[in-house]
Amino acid sequence: MTYCVALKLDRGLVFMSDTRSNAGVDDISQVLKVNSWEVPGDRAIVLLSAGNLATTQTVASLLDERAHAADPLSPSILTAHSMFQAATVVGNTLREVVTSISPLIPPSASPFGATFILGGQVGTEAPRLFLIYPEGNFIEAGDDNPFFQSGETKYGRPMLVRALDRAMTFEAAVKLLCVSFDSTIRANAGVDLPIDLRVIPANEHRISEKRRFERDDPYFNRVSREWSKALNEALSLLPDFNF
Amino acid sequence: MTYCVALKLDRGLVFMSDTRSNAGVDDISQVLKVNSWEVPGDRAIVLLSAGNLATTQTVASLLDERAHAADPLSPSILTAHSMFQAATVVGNTLREVVTSISPLIPPSASPFGATFILGGQVGTEAPRLFLIYPEGNFIEAGDDNPFFQSGETKYGRPMLVRALDRAMTFEAAVKLLCVSFDSTIRANAGVDLPIDLRVIPANEHRISEKRRFERDDPYFNRVSREWSKALNEALSLLPDFNF
Repeated sequence: MTYCVALKLDRGLVFMSDTRSNAGVDDISQVLKVNSWEVPGDRAIVLLSAGNLATTQTVASLLDERAHAADPLSPSILTAHSMFQAATVVGNTLREVVTSISPLIPPSASPFGATFILGGQVGTEAPRLFLIYPEGNFIEAGDDNPFFQSGETKYGRPMLVRALDRAMTFEAAVKLLCVSFDSTIRANAGVDLPIDLRVIPANEHRISEKRRFERDDPYFNRVSREWSKALNEALSLLPDFNF
Repeated sequence: MTYCVALKLDRGLVFMSDTRSNAGVDDISQVLKVNSWEVPGDRAIVLLSAGNLATTQTVASLLDERAHAADPLSPSILTAHSMFQAATVVGNTLREVVTSISPLIPPSASPFGATFILGGQVGTEAPRLFLIYPEGNFIEAGDDNPFFQSGETKYGRPMLVRALDRAMTFEAAVKLLCVSFDSTIRANAGVDLPIDLRVIPANEHRISEKRRFERDDPYFNRVSREWSKALNEALSLLPDFNF
């Protein structure tokens, strides 16, 4: 299982991803689900992966190889003129990989399917955020839905919906994401620490934060502990039902 | 969609169920998903339904008809000597209905499948609570898992897991259930008010509360409003992340 979230804030983009991969409960391992590309002054792009691990790793490797094998005729993640074009490149690569391994099954039904969250900023465009489906098509986050989740999305969604505010600081956004991950990790054994954080501040064309929260991270554990306490206190302050 | 929860507390059993049924977003209706049977001084039983509506209604009608057509050789929901036996009757009836309508499909994969939560007290037994699968087999709630959910379970689960305490009062339990339903209703348009409440106090062999929370219920709306406020305040009191 996987839990990935990306927020599109006024200040820029924030990405968080867990690192747990499992092929059954007896085959659990830790993998990096974040890929990123930076060209100082030109672009910063982050890709979060959910789904079949062979597919997501192959897509990321192809994106990398094609970015460095200069084919001037076809755009790569490093030469795309816009984030829309970059999302198209990722979507086409994903569809190519999924249909090559399971050509007779629709990509959405394929056991080798995957979903990506792609965000970043290219040139003078504003930062943009996309959710890319196994078929290779994608949707973009707007003002009404300034975030995307993938993987085990439900446990951690209510607090995101209640508290997400596009004007919030990166510091408050990381707190909110830690709360969202805490609810998910408590509920689904297929999602766990460490979790990876990436931040792309608007108009800086760089990834300003690359940080991993390990299992013993004092901040995450404090948020987890205090959030649990605060929820129980908040519940106790609500009026009991009166029969 | 559906959301049903039942709690097994020291004081007895508490059941809550939404009333929304939909066959596509253009075909939404309101149905009662609660059935109950009472024999004063002998038994009180509540059944919550999730899944295919034709199946759940047929099962409930068969349980009713067979309870009143006195066949002394086969136990009915009104003559079963234990809640285990009652769960067996419900499970067998469910399997019978599902396999009669889709004999070539395993019940768990059938579009006509359903899941029941059955709880109650028979005779001198303690109150018991069961989750009955489309195959007709079932599991029982114990001290380690004193509740069952069915339908859209994920959004409302984190608070149940955090705050449920077998020693809690019915008044506090209804508050907790309202919070759990509020998170679910906000997230899934297939779950909505009105919601139905049933309470079986231990050793009284009766349903002490049969209440419906309508859309304009002042208590539910107060909990919903104050819970939202309390969550945002609790989040704001947690320490922001420090890069």
